[in-house]
Amino acid sequence: MTQDYKRVALIGLGLIASSMAHAMRRADLGTDIVGTARSAETRDIAREIGLCDKVVDTAAEAVKDADLVVLAVPVGAMSGVAAEIGPHLRPGTTVTDVGSVKRAVIDAVAPHLPEGVHFIPGHPLAGTEHSGPRSGFAELFDNRFCLLVPEGTQDPVALEKLQHFWLALGANVETMEPDHHDLVLAVTSHAPHLIAYTMVGVADDLRRVTDSEVIKFSAAGFRDFTRIAASDPTMWRDVFLNNKAATLEILGRFTEELFALQRAIRTEDGDHLHDYFTRTRAIRRGIIEAGQDTDAPDFGRSGSKPSPTTKE
Amino acid sequence: MTQDYKRVALIGLGLIASSMAHAMRRADLGTDIVGTARSAETRDIAREIGLCDKVVDTAAEAVKDADLVVLAVPVGAMSGVAAEIGPHLRPGTTVTDVGSVKRAVIDAVAPHLPEGVHFIPGHPLAGTEHSGPRSGFAELFDNRFCLLVPEGTQDPVALEKLQHFWLALGANVETMEPDHHDLVLAVTSHAPHLIAYTMVGVADDLRRVTDSEVIKFSAAGFRDFTRIAASDPTMWRDVFLNNKAATLEILGRFTEELFALQRAIRTEDGDHLHDYFTRTRAIRRGIIEAGQDTDAPDFGRSGSKPSPTTKE
Repeated sequence: MTQDYKRVALIGLGLIASSMAHAMRRADLGTDIVGTARSAETRDIAREIGLCDKVVDTAAEAVKDADLVVLAVPVGAMSGVAAEIGPHLRPGTTVTDVGSVKRAVIDAVAPHLPEGVHFIPGHPLAGTEHSGPRSGFAELFDNRFCLLVPEGTQDPVALEKLQHFWLALGANVETMEPDHHDLVLAVTSHAPHLIAYTMVGVADDLRRVTDSEVIKFSAAGFRDFTRIAASDPTMWRDVFLNNKAATLEILGRFTEELFALQRAIRTEDGDHLHDYFTRTRAIRRGIIEAGQDTDAPDFGRSGSKPSPTTKE
Repeated sequence: MTQDYKRVALIGLGLIASSMAHAMRRADLGTDIVGTARSAETRDIAREIGLCDKVVDTAAEAVKDADLVVLAVPVGAMSGVAAEIGPHLRPGTTVTDVGSVKRAVIDAVAPHLPEGVHFIPGHPLAGTEHSGPRSGFAELFDNRFCLLVPEGTQDPVALEKLQHFWLALGANVETMEPDHHDLVLAVTSHAPHLIAYTMVGVADDLRRVTDSEVIKFSAAGFRDFTRIAASDPTMWRDVFLNNKAATLEILGRFTEELFALQRAIRTEDGDHLHDYFTRTRAIRRGIIEAGQDTDAPDFGRSGSKPSPTTKE
């Protein structure tokens, strides 16, 4: 068995990093957690709620003596953070990140890291529409996938140790090639987010339908779009700017297909619509069988509302 | 107070009608529930699970002596059912429906109804991706809206009675003009469904990303689309064919906006993206404040899975 990390530095204290802190404590890893964030307000909140063992003012200070450094900042901020911490990393340290795109993060971070540091980019596929240090909860990663995208030759012990770490936080771990990651996520996450943002924006813009009507009658399908479209704007701006090619490719396929369905509506081609709608049911069943959703009616929304930090 | 209906006829025994049967019993209305469905298999299942007090083989038979007739068949089947039951309705009976479009249903049903029958079209905004007589549960309408779209002069007592009926089933009731209903629903339901169907179809089609990858990594946003895109194909084919103009109008606005965002990605206009994504957050807060969703992380999906027929 590999040994656990003695000290973990969390750079950025948003939803993902704060959930990692809660999950590390739930797993009783005995790890010393040092955190930092760019904004003084975020650091103050983290101190107030006791999120980390220590909150320091700079990333350079946070990585001192850390065995594991987690870059949990928006993708567009990765390069600046890597440049800041590079000179302060000691050989043998593992650096990972939680960014939603991987090729751009590799290009932004790798050049700043000294030799002897293990850089293993990562991406936990978990989130809610909430952000900030108060939004984290220990269960966020439970039964979700964390993709590690090591590139080139990697120290197998360092990789194994990071895999164990994420398993301890509740996640399933898989490895993937960076460019393929960016394409897969363009399909399962980036294009759906842009589409949801678009639809919610359109609804908000219509003069003949009031916002109050949209809000009251959202349960008819629109509600799920609004949840997706409430995610952190800065994070998502950076995702689209940094996974441009794959996102635009998938959106191109999407509009092509949407036009075909619009034409079927216009020409009243009921068979085309029915066939298309029948095909999409199968993929849903696969998701339920894979344990990535429940088929409970209404997602159990009508049940009691758990507090984000309550352990289940 | 108005008197409750003594006998309710449910024509069609899918998700909505079967949920109405469960909700009527939960409310202890003492109503005699007569049901029928076109398919013998559906009728057999309904008999087997004791869904109604009586299941009969034809719609004509079901409406005999009913005070309230509920047309709960796909929109495309409304006209045929109305023609069948018309001659068997007695004056004073209320006929309503649960179809997702209203102008087309009015055009299909009204001509077949004899004078003295109160036709009050309706639409409960509630559903799951499941269908059939086993999919119903008593809580489906709780805190959801049921829109009634009476047109022209209506008997105020008949309208009030139907309002009371839906309130007893757990719904909030509002009235709305039919064409406005069809536009509002094009925004909150019909366009989002077509978009979700499209995105799921695109994901299923891609050669470079396997279905298994899409399924495993769906939690990153795509999952909510698959739930919407698993809804009943026949019902949705009929919705699009019967709310053509409003759906195409909204989809036109949607593609226009999507193209603007795609261009912003292509030209790396981060400010445009950030502004757009910030604006859409507000509408989400409105929905949570209106009680139409919870802000619990992950919708409480990680909690226990209630059985559809379990009372809470």
